[in-house]
Order: sequence, then C-alpha cells, then structure tokens
Amino acid sequence: MYPVSQSFLEEVSRSTGILDFDDATIRQIVSLAAAMEKATGQPMIHLELGNPGLPASRIGTEAECDAIADGVACRYPDIAGVPRLKEAGSRFVKAFINIDIAPRNIVATVGSMQGTFTTMLLLGQRDPAKDTILFINPGFPVQRQQARLLGLGIESFDIYDYRGAALEAKLRSYLEKGNITAMIYSNPNNPAWFNLTEEELATIGRLATRYDAVVMEDMAYLGMDFRCDYGVPGTEPFIPTVARYTDNYIIFISASKIFSYAGQRVATVCIGNGLAGRCFPALKSFYNMPTFVDAYVFGVLYCASSGTTHSAQYAMAAMLEAACRGELNFVDECREYERRSQLVRKAFTDNGFHLVYDRDGDRPISDGFFFTVGYGNMTGSELHRRLFAHGIATIPLSGTGSAQAGVRVCVSTLSSPADFSLLEQRLKAFDNEMKHKV
Amino acid sequence: MYPVSQSFLEEVSRSTGILDFDDATIRQIVSLAAAMEKATGQPMIHLELGNPGLPASRIGTEAECDAIADGVACRYPDIAGVPRLKEAGSRFVKAFINIDIAPRNIVATVGSMQGTFTTMLLLGQRDPAKDTILFINPGFPVQRQQARLLGLGIESFDIYDYRGAALEAKLRSYLEKGNITAMIYSNPNNPAWFNLTEEELATIGRLATRYDAVVMEDMAYLGMDFRCDYGVPGTEPFIPTVARYTDNYIIFISASKIFSYAGQRVATVCIGNGLAGRCFPALKSFYNMPTFVDAYVFGVLYCASSGTTHSAQYAMAAMLEAACRGELNFVDECREYERRSQLVRKAFTDNGFHLVYDRDGDRPISDGFFFTVGYGNMTGSELHRRLFAHGIATIPLSGTGSAQAGVRVCVSTLSSPADFSLLEQRLKAFDNEMKHKV
Repeated sequence: MYPVSQSFLEEVSRSTGILDFDDATIRQIVSLAAAMEKATGQPMIHLELGNPGLPASRIGTEAECDAIADGVACRYPDIAGVPRLKEAGSRFVKAFINIDIAPRNIVATVGSMQGTFTTMLLLGQRDPAKDTILFINPGFPVQRQQARLLGLGIESFDIYDYRGAALEAKLRSYLEKGNITAMIYSNPNNPAWFNLTEEELATIGRLATRYDAVVMEDMAYLGMDFRCDYGVPGTEPFIPTVARYTDNYIIFISASKIFSYAGQRVATVCIGNGLAGRCFPALKSFYNMPTFVDAYVFGVLYCASSGTTHSAQYAMAAMLEAACRGELNFVDECREYERRSQLVRKAFTDNGFHLVYDRDGDRPISDGFFFTVGYGNMTGSELHRRLFAHGIATIPLSGTGSAQAGVRVCVSTLSSPADFSLLEQRLKAFDNEMKHKV
Repeated sequence: MYPVSQSFLEEVSRSTGILDFDDATIRQIVSLAAAMEKATGQPMIHLELGNPGLPASRIGTEAECDAIADGVACRYPDIAGVPRLKEAGSRFVKAFINIDIAPRNIVATVGSMQGTFTTMLLLGQRDPAKDTILFINPGFPVQRQQARLLGLGIESFDIYDYRGAALEAKLRSYLEKGNITAMIYSNPNNPAWFNLTEEELATIGRLATRYDAVVMEDMAYLGMDFRCDYGVPGTEPFIPTVARYTDNYIIFISASKIFSYAGQRVATVCIGNGLAGRCFPALKSFYNMPTFVDAYVFGVLYCASSGTTHSAQYAMAAMLEAACRGELNFVDECREYERRSQLVRKAFTDNGFHLVYDRDGDRPISDGFFFTVGYGNMTGSELHRRLFAHGIATIPLSGTGSAQAGVRVCVSTLSSPADFSLLEQRLKAFDNEMKHKV
C-alpha cells in the first residue's frame, strides 16, 4: 500500500532496468509505474503520460475503416502524404490559424514525433555553418533527446525569467552567434501550459527572419487555450502563431491530442511556403534536390519510414475536413480537459502545492492538459520521487529544461469522481507526512 | 505515344524537379513515370516500384478494423510493440524459420524501412571503433541512403564474383579492419532474386561472430524462393537464415510483401537473444541503458516515431498467428508472383534480353518478385533511359550497388493478359529499334 518506502521504490526501479530514477524518460516512468502497480497490487494515479483521455473521434475511425475497405492497405502511401490529407491540411490551417500554406507543403508524418525528428535532421544539414537547435524551454523532453541522437548542437534557456520584452535580448544573445539553424517551442506549452503572447511571437518571428533561424512551432495542443474560443472555422479569434511574423517556420499539427488519435501515429508537418520552396546548396549537393520540401520528402521521409500509415492519413483528412465544415468542434470536445484540470489543480493547491508557471504576460494561465506544481522549496526531483512513493506518477520539471523546482501534472486520464477523490486522499497523506517531517 | 524522344524525356524529368535522371531514387522514378503518363496521355508499364500486386490479407484488415472498434486509436501503442504482436512474432520465427527469439526481442516498427534506419543508428553508436556498414550488394538502394543520412561509413561489394567459397576471403578483407559494425543484405535478394546458399550463410555467420559485426538480414520476401515449399508451419524445409550460424544478428520481417500490407507500414525487428541482451558501455553512457534492446526501444524508437500505428500492429499479429495455425499460407498466396515472373521473363528473353544474376551456387535462380536483365552490352543507365522512352519503367542496377550492366524488373503489378501483351509489344518495338541502330 502507498506510500511505499524509498528503498522499495529503488528496488522496483532497478528491476525495470532503469539505472537512474531522476534521469528516466517519460516512457520509462510509465513502465516504472506499471511495475509499481504489479509490486503493490494497487493502482498508481497516472499524471505522467499525456495519453488522450477521450475516445478517438468517430469521424476518424469510420474514415479509417472505410479506407481499409477501399483497399489502401496493400499500396504504399505517397511519401508526402495522400492528396486528400494535404488539401485538408491546407484548408485547416487557413480556417483555424488564418495562414496560407500550399497543399504541396503540408506533409504527412508518423506523428509529430517523426515530424520533429526528421525535420531536425534536415535542418542540421541545410547550412554547414548552422548545426545547433535552440530550445525555448520548458519543453517536451524527447525533442531534446532527438537533437542529441542526431548529433546536433543544443542551446537552451528557461523562458521563466524572459517573458515579454526581456525575450528579445535573450534570443539575440544566441542567434548572433550564427550557428542556430532552428528554434523550437510548443504553444500551448508542454509542460507548463502557458501561451506565448503576440508580443513574444512577433519577437521570435522577426529574429527568425533576421538571423535565418527556422522556427519549429509545435501545436500539439492547438486551440486548447480555453480562455478564447478558437473552435469556429474561418472566424476570429484565430489561433496565435509565429507564422504571422516570419516565413521561416514549420508548424507541427498532430491528430494525437486534438482528435484523441494518438494510437494511430499521424500528423502533418506544415512548412511555410517561403521555406518549403527555398533552395539550399548543401541540400543540392547531399540529396541532389535543392528545395527544402523535396529534400524533406524524398530524401529524409523516404528513408525514415517510407511514408505514414495509409488508412490513418484518411482518418486525419476526414477529421480536418469535418472541422473545417464546422461539424467537428475539436476545441469544445477537448474542453473536458479544462474541467479535469480545475479539479486536479484544486486538489493540489488545497494540499500545500503552488503553481510554478502561472502567468502569460499579466494574465493567469488557462486550465488545460497540463500544469506545473511545486511544494515548499523541495527540488523537482525529490518531489517526483516522494509523490511516486505516494502512488502518484508525474514528470520532474528538470527533464523539460526548466530551471524551476517542480513537476508536470497531466490531467488527461482522470475522469471519475473516484479518481479525483483518490488523488485528494493521497495528496493529503503526502502533505501530512511532509508537515510532520518539518 | 511511346517511344518518346530523349529530349522529351529530359524535359519531363526536369519538370518534376529531378536534376539527374541517372541518380533518381525509386520514388522519384515513380513520380517521373506518373509525369510521363500525364505528358503523353498513355500509361507506362510499371516495373519500377515494388508495390504488392495482390489485395491485403483479409485476416489483417478485419483484425485492424476490430482493433479500431475496440478503441486503440486514442491510446499510444507500447513503443516496443503490443504484447500480442511480440508473442505472435516469436511463434512465427519458430514455426517458419525454426529459430528461438523471445517475445521481448521482437519489436514493432513502421515498416522495415524504419527498422533498418533506426537499428543502423544504434549500430553506429554501440562501439566507438565501429562506424561503418558493409553492404553485400546488390541491395535495396534506400538502405545505403539511410547509412549516408546517419553519417555512417559505407563499404560495399558486388557479390556477383564472390559466390560460394570466394565469399570468405572477400568478407575477411573488410572485417579485418575492425571498423564494420554491421553487414546488410536481403534474402531473397532485392533486386536480383538470388538466394544465399547454406555455405554462404554459414560463412557470414561465422565471421559475424569472429569479428563482432552484426548481421542485418532483410527478409522482406521471406519464403518466396518458390523452388522449395516454405509455407507449412513447424515443418521442414525451414527458411534459410544466418541465425543458424551466429547469435549476432537482426532479422527484419515486414508485412508489406508477404501479407501484401505495404500501405499500413508495419514490420517486426527480430533481434537475436544474444545481441538483444548484450550490454554495451557506449550505450550505457549515451542512453543510460546498457542493453541493446532497451536502448533500441526506449532510446531510439521512442524518438523516431513514438511507436507503430496501433491498429496495424493488431493486423500483423493476426496474420502471423493465422500463418502459425496453418490458416494463412502466405507462400502459396505469393506464388502468383512466380507465374507473373515466368511470363514477364519470357517477354524479355524473347526480345533480345538476358538475365544478369542467374544462379545460386549451381542452380538457376527462382522466379519471384524481381529479376535483373541486360541487353547486349548496353550500360544499365542507358538501358533504363531507353526503356523509359519506350514506356517501360525500371530501376538501373547501378543504384543497387551492382557492378553489372542491367536493370531491375519488378513483376508484381502486371496481372492481366492485356498487361503482358502490351509489354511484349513494347519490348519488340524496343528490340527492333536497337537492331536498326546497329
């Protein structure tokens, strides 16, 4: 029964082959949580993995089964994506983000995970002088690991102290060196759920053009800043984006969260028309294909997996189309996460926790998929361990490139009153134990 | 109408962004063939891309739709593969290849394309002294491109003059240098459809152990040496493999060809138990995970795509299970390619062509998915161009690492009498034109 002792925790950790608890990846933490459940016979509370907590959109699953019935399973997909998905992706970014990207520059990938991995590879080749990715942190830990795996240079900073006007000088200090090929961030932010302000996006875009650093804008949680209603196609407000301030960008739109379609591994890489058609001498000499989008599709994606699962592409196309017609309001469907977040946040703050990243400019952050919490002045790594011992799995902020003390809480899979009351009970036990220690 | 002039061909080639016709990838040749059809209004004969020419196995498509109905689309798949697929893969290699691999070491990938790309990445990291892949050619051109993309060293030779007893000294000359991390080949061979003999497999296996070079054995066309009947589970003859001669191997089994499931991008990477569990100091320091299979799954595959499409994994599992029960004889189903090959081969040899790779040891090669042909002493590149102008798309052997003059012919998608007679007609026109030139 929870809490378990720290030595029991260590033992379970070793049994799963994890050498360093503090250095474990999210997927290792998931394995460890499963091992804990086996060892204790009691469920953990899963606040670690960002699995969608809603059923997959039916429009997607029906289109997928129709495509299979139509015989797509035996034919290799177009590597760039099936024409229907490319068209739908182009209409979707116009309807919800109000930007123009040609269908040719909307490319299908095996989730945004493949999208960022493969574009990083190409971004590391496009100019011999530019070999480094700048991470505007906190961020999704695996993206840093992707850059490491590819042998790219890594620069990063925690945006916590550089919001608003302070961002420009901080960015310049990296970009002036001339070796930054791309900057990456997620918006809404994973793990901290803040949103960049228009002022901040304008700064990033202006500097991206000036220093020729491509912006990689990960929109995994597109539209889920529930303070605004972004769910109506072709109507203001439109989803904020750096694309309004530079042509030098790539936007990653995944079906995993907005359509609860994570299992099928499908996403689109949306390359700004200016970047997509640009010719790079280094790409010409390596791939014999000078333009960015051709080298990406025929040079990189072909090698990475020879395309994206055929039926899943039709699923995503159908969901994007339905959203554009106003028949699938993905923002409203995801609003359930806002409700869950409110309950989970209250359970934490009622028991001695505080929000770590709490503001966008002068506004409090929205409720949504994630938030970040700290406890007293406990380090993130210690908090993560102690919560784990109490049957609550989270992710330490240190792994996300944050310099703040705390953990990431993902609310997506808690849904029943029983889930919330078990969480409250364990947080109360945690708080009591800590108070007694002091 | 075909033949078109060489200048017309050049013009169409330039319009598709292909800078060098002779250096085009298979997928670019596919695009070019489509552009030719548009420009001429007449269909090409497609002998270039290895699309399966049979419908997908129904057992697979039904299992896939069932999995979607069960709700897998919203949940991230296990990165290593769903347990059902891992179990089925283990039973399958026992039933048809007669080797023992634990389910833990059967890993799902987004096609064997992702399988070879991601294992090459890890094989390039496992030992700082070993940074080079040895290609036993001819081979699948993209695999060479994968190694290039990853920045690995490349060594290669054409096995044409080194069959049988001559193979040992040739392999040693590379392996003695100590920098070869892996050797790769496909069996049956793509593009030449020969099969390595037991003597050759034994040589490769023995040297793999002796010099610690991992064998990457690509079994995309598993069981399709139709001279033997490999389709009965648990019964001799078993499919030949290097795994009988070394523990230092990885076998790639894809659903694309054996189950005509190329569209869904699903395969298994089958890592020999000895290699999978082996600890490498370099992997411990880079991934904090010393064993090969852990570093592969949690270190590499997680970054590459966060797993393989959930429903497609259930499809492959169901097909492997049905094959093991004797209810899906994939060898018999694929025997249709033998019939097509006999007809296509006759059309070529009746019109002045000769087989290039024609023997395994002292036996003529089998009919199957591919074969290789030459014409007089024309170079492969010239033959490829001239056939293209005559409305016949092939792949030049030079791109496959072959030193022989010729092209690869893939017979998979020709099926109707009309297909075969159009091919004959065009080959006759080609032969006549060439004879008049002489």
